[in-house]
Amino acid sequence: MARKIRLGMVGGGQGAFIGAVHRIAAAIDGEMELVCGAFSSTPQKSKASGIALMVDPDRCYGSFEEMILQEKKRTDGMDAVAIVTPNHMHFAPAKMALQNGFHVICDKPVCFNLTEAKQLKTIIEKTKLCFALTHNYTGYPMVKEARHLIKKGAIGNIRKIIVEYPQGWLSFAAERSGTNKQAEWRTDPKRSGIAGAVGDIGTHAENLAEYITGLKITQLCADTTTYVTGRLLDDDANMLLRFNNGAKGILHCSQICNGDQNGLNIRVYGEKGALQWRQETPQYLHHKTIEGHSIYQPGVGKLSDAANYNSRIPFGHPEGYLEAFANIYRNFARTVRKSIDGKKPTAMELDFPTIDDGIRGLQFVAAAIKSGKANAKWVKMP
Amino acid sequence: MARKIRLGMVGGGQGAFIGAVHRIAAAIDGEMELVCGAFSSTPQKSKASGIALMVDPDRCYGSFEEMILQEKKRTDGMDAVAIVTPNHMHFAPAKMALQNGFHVICDKPVCFNLTEAKQLKTIIEKTKLCFALTHNYTGYPMVKEARHLIKKGAIGNIRKIIVEYPQGWLSFAAERSGTNKQAEWRTDPKRSGIAGAVGDIGTHAENLAEYITGLKITQLCADTTTYVTGRLLDDDANMLLRFNNGAKGILHCSQICNGDQNGLNIRVYGEKGALQWRQETPQYLHHKTIEGHSIYQPGVGKLSDAANYNSRIPFGHPEGYLEAFANIYRNFARTVRKSIDGKKPTAMELDFPTIDDGIRGLQFVAAAIKSGKANAKWVKMP
Amino acid sequence: MARKIRLGMVGGGQGAFIGAVHRIAAAIDGEMELVCGAFSSTPQKSKASGIALMVDPDRCYGSFEEMILQEKKRTDGMDAVAIVTPNHMHFAPAKMALQNGFHVICDKPVCFNLTEAKQLKTIIEKTKLCFALTHNYTGYPMVKEARHLIKKGAIGNIRKIIVEYPQGWLSFAAERSGTNKQAEWRTDPKRSGIAGAVGDIGTHAENLAEYITGLKITQLCADTTTYVTGRLLDDDANMLLRFNNGAKGILHCSQICNGDQNGLNIRVYGEKGALQWRQETPQYLHHKTIEGHSIYQPGVGKLSDAANYNSRIPFGHPEGYLEAFANIYRNFARTVRKSIDGKKPTAMELDFPTIDDGIRGLQFVAAAIKSGKANAKWVKMP
Amino acid sequence: MARKIRLGMVGGGQGAFIGAVHRIAAAIDGEMELVCGAFSSTPQKSKASGIALMVDPDRCYGSFEEMILQEKKRTDGMDAVAIVTPNHMHFAPAKMALQNGFHVICDKPVCFNLTEAKQLKTIIEKTKLCFALTHNYTGYPMVKEARHLIKKGAIGNIRKIIVEYPQGWLSFAAERSGTNKQAEWRTDPKRSGIAGAVGDIGTHAENLAEYITGLKITQLCADTTTYVTGRLLDDDANMLLRFNNGAKGILHCSQICNGDQNGLNIRVYGEKGALQWRQETPQYLHHKTIEGHSIYQPGVGKLSDAANYNSRIPFGHPEGYLEAFANIYRNFARTVRKSIDGKKPTAMELDFPTIDDGIRGLQFVAAAIKSGKANAKWVKMP
Repeated sequence: MARKIRLGMVGGGQGAFIGAVHRIAAAIDGEMELVCGAFSSTPQKSKASGIALMVDPDRCYGSFEEMILQEKKRTDGMDAVAIVTPNHMHFAPAKMALQNGFHVICDKPVCFNLTEAKQLKTIIEKTKLCFALTHNYTGYPMVKEARHLIKKGAIGNIRKIIVEYPQGWLSFAAERSGTNKQAEWRTDPKRSGIAGAVGDIGTHAENLAEYITGLKITQLCADTTTYVTGRLLDDDANMLLRFNNGAKGILHCSQICNGDQNGLNIRVYGEKGALQWRQETPQYLHHKTIEGHSIYQPGVGKLSDAANYNSRIPFGHPEGYLEAFANIYRNFARTVRKSIDGKKPTAMELDFPTIDDGIRGLQFVAAAIKSGKANAKWVKMP
Repeated sequence: MARKIRLGMVGGGQGAFIGAVHRIAAAIDGEMELVCGAFSSTPQKSKASGIALMVDPDRCYGSFEEMILQEKKRTDGMDAVAIVTPNHMHFAPAKMALQNGFHVICDKPVCFNLTEAKQLKTIIEKTKLCFALTHNYTGYPMVKEARHLIKKGAIGNIRKIIVEYPQGWLSFAAERSGTNKQAEWRTDPKRSGIAGAVGDIGTHAENLAEYITGLKITQLCADTTTYVTGRLLDDDANMLLRFNNGAKGILHCSQICNGDQNGLNIRVYGEKGALQWRQETPQYLHHKTIEGHSIYQPGVGKLSDAANYNSRIPFGHPEGYLEAFANIYRNFARTVRKSIDGKKPTAMELDFPTIDDGIRGLQFVAAAIKSGKANAKWVKMP
Repeated sequence: MARKIRLGMVGGGQGAFIGAVHRIAAAIDGEMELVCGAFSSTPQKSKASGIALMVDPDRCYGSFEEMILQEKKRTDGMDAVAIVTPNHMHFAPAKMALQNGFHVICDKPVCFNLTEAKQLKTIIEKTKLCFALTHNYTGYPMVKEARHLIKKGAIGNIRKIIVEYPQGWLSFAAERSGTNKQAEWRTDPKRSGIAGAVGDIGTHAENLAEYITGLKITQLCADTTTYVTGRLLDDDANMLLRFNNGAKGILHCSQICNGDQNGLNIRVYGEKGALQWRQETPQYLHHKTIEGHSIYQPGVGKLSDAANYNSRIPFGHPEGYLEAFANIYRNFARTVRKSIDGKKPTAMELDFPTIDDGIRGLQFVAAAIKSGKANAKWVKMP
Repeated sequence: MARKIRLGMVGGGQGAFIGAVHRIAAAIDGEMELVCGAFSSTPQKSKASGIALMVDPDRCYGSFEEMILQEKKRTDGMDAVAIVTPNHMHFAPAKMALQNGFHVICDKPVCFNLTEAKQLKTIIEKTKLCFALTHNYTGYPMVKEARHLIKKGAIGNIRKIIVEYPQGWLSFAAERSGTNKQAEWRTDPKRSGIAGAVGDIGTHAENLAEYITGLKITQLCADTTTYVTGRLLDDDANMLLRFNNGAKGILHCSQICNGDQNGLNIRVYGEKGALQWRQETPQYLHHKTIEGHSIYQPGVGKLSDAANYNSRIPFGHPEGYLEAFANIYRNFARTVRKSIDGKKPTAMELDFPTIDDGIRGLQFVAAAIKSGKANAKWVKMP
């Protein structure tokens, strides 16, 4: 019988951002369990973070080196390491994990610079272990569908690609507010590398364009800018692109697009038609030709195996359904915990439907059916 | 140190639908673990389903009665039971679980009929255990925000409420296709109760309207219809509503709205303004007045504590982000498993970004920064 | 050789609202000319209004009776009368015009009450003159397309119709503001008749539903309300409908839907698919089935003759294009007039593109082509 | 008393495209009348075209030279000339018209090349006559509003501008179909000039960007392409822009964006917020900041004088309302004409609401009010 894959985490302690996303992503399907972590480089903080995550305190380590060495000794040791630290702290733990026999899943960009990345590739090839990079935007079912449609020729030979990634959260000097750790390290060349917006989100746009189309960028002309005074890295870039099949394109990424949240989107124009996808409404894939405009959605009509394989929501439901459902479960779980501990749950924890909602629902049903049977007469509810 | 809440499940075996949703919802936050289940009334099927879910085979039971009795004996026994069977199988396991000291989280509608529901309420009150009903649509952050805004008077006294729940999946006799178990039991009065669409989705609409507004329906006039020949329950209803503050409204629910997926939406009009929310783009809450039109989103501007407490996506990301992220993790996990087992992963399992994407990204960064430094000159990529 | 149809107008003087719309609608295609009018029941006001509209002062009459009698005597007299007065002033001028040989085009609702309307029908039939009622929402190309698609069976037998007409402009006592003549007469039973919102906009919804589907309402259950204290007519209605083919439906119309502008929309569900249209984005007709979702637009793919016959915008342009174009013309015309009169045009009148924009455009073209020919090098603009 | 401005037209005969748009734009407000034209360079075709437009046959000229000379002699001669010929035929008639004392309104681009345009400017300045260029996209009320908001500092200092103009109608060799005159001359360097898409639509994008922002482009880097084999001019361009205040931007225009119709749109990002406008839904102007997202619309809340001055639709109605209204009038006018001529109107001409719709509406009103008065009971309709 199969057992869950055991995961250790590097980074992601209290106050971090992307660590929580990785943990949810690992948990959703019940195929992995978080068993240990070096959540912080301060041992005490690492332990506190781990305990809050209900990780065994003995497996909350003060450094990734310690974690790798200790977990290697255990018969129930971790199988894989998730690396969720800032960019400059990807290479060392990835290298050591691989060299000690652990699979690795790592946040992007993969390393601080190209030299490190190439070394890492050599190590991966030598160890034959699994390595995944969380370019998460290629994980959407409708992105898979787009790639599938292009591969099978639905829009013909590709001519033009426009990929955009506007954000607005760095349109002011957030890194000097003293309260935004994300802004601090992402604008710091010592931790982020040579690029700001280009590295942080431009790479997502590049990855999405090449993933969907199967093409490669061969040339680019980039107008990079730092709009916020005193900032050390670019916060905006406009680029012209050329691709290996002769297609041309535009890529722009920005963190100063005031009022935009996370506007990643792509338009691919071919000889026979076009595909359009926006991350903010990820369940819709638009297919346009001179003759008409259709919208693909998970669960509607026939989709590719790849789209179906990567969709876990019931047909006809939107992305996000699962999180709303999870809120009921989480609030219930926290209330149960308080009950077990003999404590009083908060109003927030108690915010889930109860037996009274159930009774109300059945009263509604009874009234509606009674009214319907009377050929639509008015009926009172209790 | 806290431990995870231990969950047992009744129903949700192979071929079922809503069980998987409950399991994901329970798993997302890492605060619960599925430790046992009576996944099917056939012991063999229950065990097979449990093993596929990586549940200890000794804790895969052939009946809910067995599960409750056995788990009660264990020191590490379950804390709570999730009931995900068809409607006619809610009451018995809920009652027995509560009477044996287990908390209960149950799919909706709560019971087969009102009599059962009222009995259940008595039991819950006597046992003082937690009971949650998964009216999941009230779990959305922007639904919480709407309730909050109304409570604080943002739209003034409520005058009119329009709540709709159109679906199209039963616009033909799907229950006679022989391949759609969902359609079969949901149109079967013996398993669903007195109502079809009204019970299955009308109750969600009713619950959403009362949750958001804080009002109660006092009277209704329902025109219920069975459009598909031979169907035994209603598949559509149009209703006029009256509320306890004098407001009026419309509720319609349908399973024959051809081409609609899961179009739950609500509009609430007050003396000073209106709120509109659609489940298909759940991250947007529209606020309209005679003076203008604003859109609220998680992570943008100041939201209520309730909206923030129930949102786990990073600011500026849409609902669905976590599932796309989870696809990377799941595919990686399955590839790792194959690696551990010495097997070859499938193309589907291998569909996640690798070191090559990482190198590509850094090549892109290097080219863009080089071009930018040269005042936007064309630069080649490898 | 054809000449323009000569139009006289009853009502529509200074301060009126719908008269201007009728005049624009009559002018757009150059097939009619406004030659005379009884723009007000005060002769002086009628003349002032007419002069502002550049109507021959001798043909600006103090009453519709005078206009009809005088125009009848002329060899170049009007051919048709447009009636744009409040409801209670439709019947008398329509009757007299018809009885004196003039065609009539009349704002809706056709008369103050049913008795008048039936008398009018008798007169029309006797005189064999043309009579048009401006239920303008059936004039949209995509409404014609919807009717055509239903007639040819594209969505099968119709089951359910939802038609809505929410407005918000009467959500407060605008009729008592002293500055809103529209609100005054539309809420006044002496001028509007027995109904407020139901007559003013409910009739549009009813007309649209019957026009598109070809069905007739056979029964209705209406919950009408007056929300604003002191108002004498309904300002909101929720209705259940039944149609002559067994279809059912919902109609609601409201003038207290705070924040809604003119939200007329319709959804028609049939056995094989559904059509959806919204007046606020009138160029899109949505066609949905269980298999997919397509959007029809003027100028895209093959449309019905009726849609094409009623579309005058160049393919690929949206509704509204012509008005924007007309702003250039109007502002130019007013500037020319000032030039002829030796006066100085205002900044508003001068707001149209000039030779400088033309030169700028050609400089842009020259720079772009030069850059393109140099394989995308940077080029300066003057 | 004012009289209408008298307009003569050069070009726009049968089979032409933009001429009809100009005529509608001139007619809408009833401030201009078309009195003469040189609709074609073939005298016979010019006369036939003019007669179809109900222009006096004696004033349908065989050349613009003839028109200018003849009209100059008349006491009721034209005031202004509208030039709607292909690009290479703008300069000569504009020059001669101006030199003979006529105001000019001209389609864009203003001339075949820059030399002509500069000469024309000299003539305009010398004659002191009015000259308008129909860069029509700056005519929208919400474009005026955007310019106003930027001028008053609503989004702060501008940093980034993205302006796009994708069309798809030339994604294949339409110019060689033998049936598309528009495609023929617009891809012909002898009639269009040195540019294809860049001149035809790129200039609109450039004009819109400079109009809204008040900035000037100082530098550009353009990657121009001819995708369709055998085509003689560019059909696509991607450009990087720099502006005189230091802002940067992207402009792309294309006629091979398969499935796009007329997707002109602009996004302007400033230090304090952003504005977004799309020509396909021109009634909405989006204003976004880090704090929130608002939508401006004609007739909602307080708008600038410029927006109000250029909006003629009743508040709360969308663009396009007037055309739908005009369809009722036009079809009525054609039916009246047939009646006058003793002919039978076609079904298309008869497609307008009649007295029966009026009676139906009042029956509906009567039934609804009766039902409402009976506290929402079912009522039959005739």
